[in-house]
Amino acid sequence: MQELTEKDIQAIEIGAGILGTGGGGNPYYGKLHAIAEMRRGAKVRLMSLGELDDDALVISVGNIGAPAVSMEKICEGNEIVRAVRAIEEEVGRKVDAIIAVEIGGANGIRPAAIAAIMDLPLVDGDGMGRAFPEMQMTTFSIYGHCSMPAAMSDAHGNTVIFKHLVSELWLERLARSCVVQMGAGAGMVEAPMSGKFVKQYAVPGTVTQARNLGLAVMEANKANLNPIEQICRQENGQVLFEGKIVDLERKMVAGFTRGNLQLEGIANFSNEQASVDIQNENLIFRINGEVKCSVPDLIIILDIETGHAITTEVLRYGQKVAVLGIPCHPLLRSSRALEVVGPKAFGYPDVSYQPFEQN
Amino acid sequence: MQELTEKDIQAIEIGAGILGTGGGGNPYYGKLHAIAEMRRGAKVRLMSLGELDDDALVISVGNIGAPAVSMEKICEGNEIVRAVRAIEEEVGRKVDAIIAVEIGGANGIRPAAIAAIMDLPLVDGDGMGRAFPEMQMTTFSIYGHCSMPAAMSDAHGNTVIFKHLVSELWLERLARSCVVQMGAGAGMVEAPMSGKFVKQYAVPGTVTQARNLGLAVMEANKANLNPIEQICRQENGQVLFEGKIVDLERKMVAGFTRGNLQLEGIANFSNEQASVDIQNENLIFRINGEVKCSVPDLIIILDIETGHAITTEVLRYGQKVAVLGIPCHPLLRSSRALEVVGPKAFGYPDVSYQPFEQN
Repeated sequence: MQELTEKDIQAIEIGAGILGTGGGGNPYYGKLHAIAEMRRGAKVRLMSLGELDDDALVISVGNIGAPAVSMEKICEGNEIVRAVRAIEEEVGRKVDAIIAVEIGGANGIRPAAIAAIMDLPLVDGDGMGRAFPEMQMTTFSIYGHCSMPAAMSDAHGNTVIFKHLVSELWLERLARSCVVQMGAGAGMVEAPMSGKFVKQYAVPGTVTQARNLGLAVMEANKANLNPIEQICRQENGQVLFEGKIVDLERKMVAGFTRGNLQLEGIANFSNEQASVDIQNENLIFRINGEVKCSVPDLIIILDIETGHAITTEVLRYGQKVAVLGIPCHPLLRSSRALEVVGPKAFGYPDVSYQPFEQN
Repeated sequence: MQELTEKDIQAIEIGAGILGTGGGGNPYYGKLHAIAEMRRGAKVRLMSLGELDDDALVISVGNIGAPAVSMEKICEGNEIVRAVRAIEEEVGRKVDAIIAVEIGGANGIRPAAIAAIMDLPLVDGDGMGRAFPEMQMTTFSIYGHCSMPAAMSDAHGNTVIFKHLVSELWLERLARSCVVQMGAGAGMVEAPMSGKFVKQYAVPGTVTQARNLGLAVMEANKANLNPIEQICRQENGQVLFEGKIVDLERKMVAGFTRGNLQLEGIANFSNEQASVDIQNENLIFRINGEVKCSVPDLIIILDIETGHAITTEVLRYGQKVAVLGIPCHPLLRSSRALEVVGPKAFGYPDVSYQPFEQN
């Protein structure tokens, strides 16, 4: 078990932003929340998967909603805590540790604040190894964990329990329609898992991964090195494109941010056109109309100077960006996983997933 | 305690249809359900308010959804039973009796089937003394009962618990958005009440009232008497209009049936025009543009020949109908009640409620 420092939290903010592939919400407020808790004397204790007891009760936590809304409608702070307490009451047992539902974006760092508030260890891993827009898209759900009873709680204290639903998709459907009523932001937790299950099916080590990514960017910035090169080296990534944003369509649909981004190439990519399709996260990357990288691989849009991620809601016309591809974790590349998080699951019947490094 | 017969159930179907003021869903399927249970040997035991123990646990039950949908998407039958079981688990105690959330329409008779299945007494009363479209519109909520924890369950077995919500309006909001996802039909139960509270704030004797109304119509039909006169006599009602439906607008909006009905007068009402505004139930009745009767008083559209109620979803162009006004129960005429169920609560800022018998 390792106690995280403020510097770690700052690094995780940067790393979670990168792993968010544009979505998962901006991690900035989550960082402030975690640091505020630490300054009050609370501790964020990171626990590796190996340290987890097989029969420990681990609960996956995060916020549900639209990233664009989360920038203006800031969390009250205890939404997730209330949801965890409701589930503890429901199952009649206290949970032993918490794990991020996704390491990407706001949900990659908010659990650190919640772990501090609740004085519980934060497990070093998550259910996506990135961010995804829908709730059934976790390795936990994909590999057979039933998310019910799940709970959500909003800033007012409204708390809803999804006691028994016939599928993970029903949870997405009902929780999504509730969160729209709740103003497109709420804390969400799923049924606790055994430590044994988490050890097998969590994407491992992703809190550390986010921190190391952040530290690499911070160090590169300090030493005037190219941060994007550092990121690629550390993550087996590849620069897919460099260009300027020349068109941007972004709208709120049914609680999601959906859109499309058009890029005009610069430097090595002059005279080429690229595009990114978005549903909270970056889904499909094309050059001159041809798919070069798709979910579940990570499509990451970075500020070309700083190497910091640009999340969906802060994309702007005229920004100069690099588009990176990073391979997703093998747990997301199985045929079972691709049914849930491959291009077809996102409404692209004509796109067959290919590991992007083979394109 | 009194055991209901098949004839009673048939009479309640007719009476609940009349008291539904156009909404609450068509009681036909609920009648079939109750009779099927009785033929299997189950009993519907009617308990008067006076027989209720002060510390008995009474749960109010009904279906939530759009009446128009309930005609085609028939209940699976155990939706409400599952919701009751979920609440019993939630509060850690078995309930002692059930009460209809509303006596009007389908919810006036379905509880008889549920009482039979669960072998629980059915309390002779309800929370509306008619039907209303929204959940906060019960005398229980109006007079201070908190509906949470409430539960809903659909035909698939999806069960959601509204554990803690900051107001009754939030229950309406969240349950409504869930039921839209559930195909606009689900069983819904609210937190149990004490017998003491129910004795004070339930609209009393309404199951018996519905039965007696139905028996009066059945007898009038048999004896070739005017059933509408019988209804008026029994309920202090008044024929507000007789006419032909000359225009009908009806659509599904956000899980509700909304619409407007235009009538051209016949007999004593020749050369007069009338209209009825609808949100599941008949809300506002006008003659030549002037409001003659409004919620919470009962505006009832009857087949002019048979005296049977015509619910919103079976209104048709060309039907000859009588429009009846019946005074609502005094519990609905207090200023506290009118804030929740008066014309303003339904979006008519310019209509001031007046007991219709004073118009």
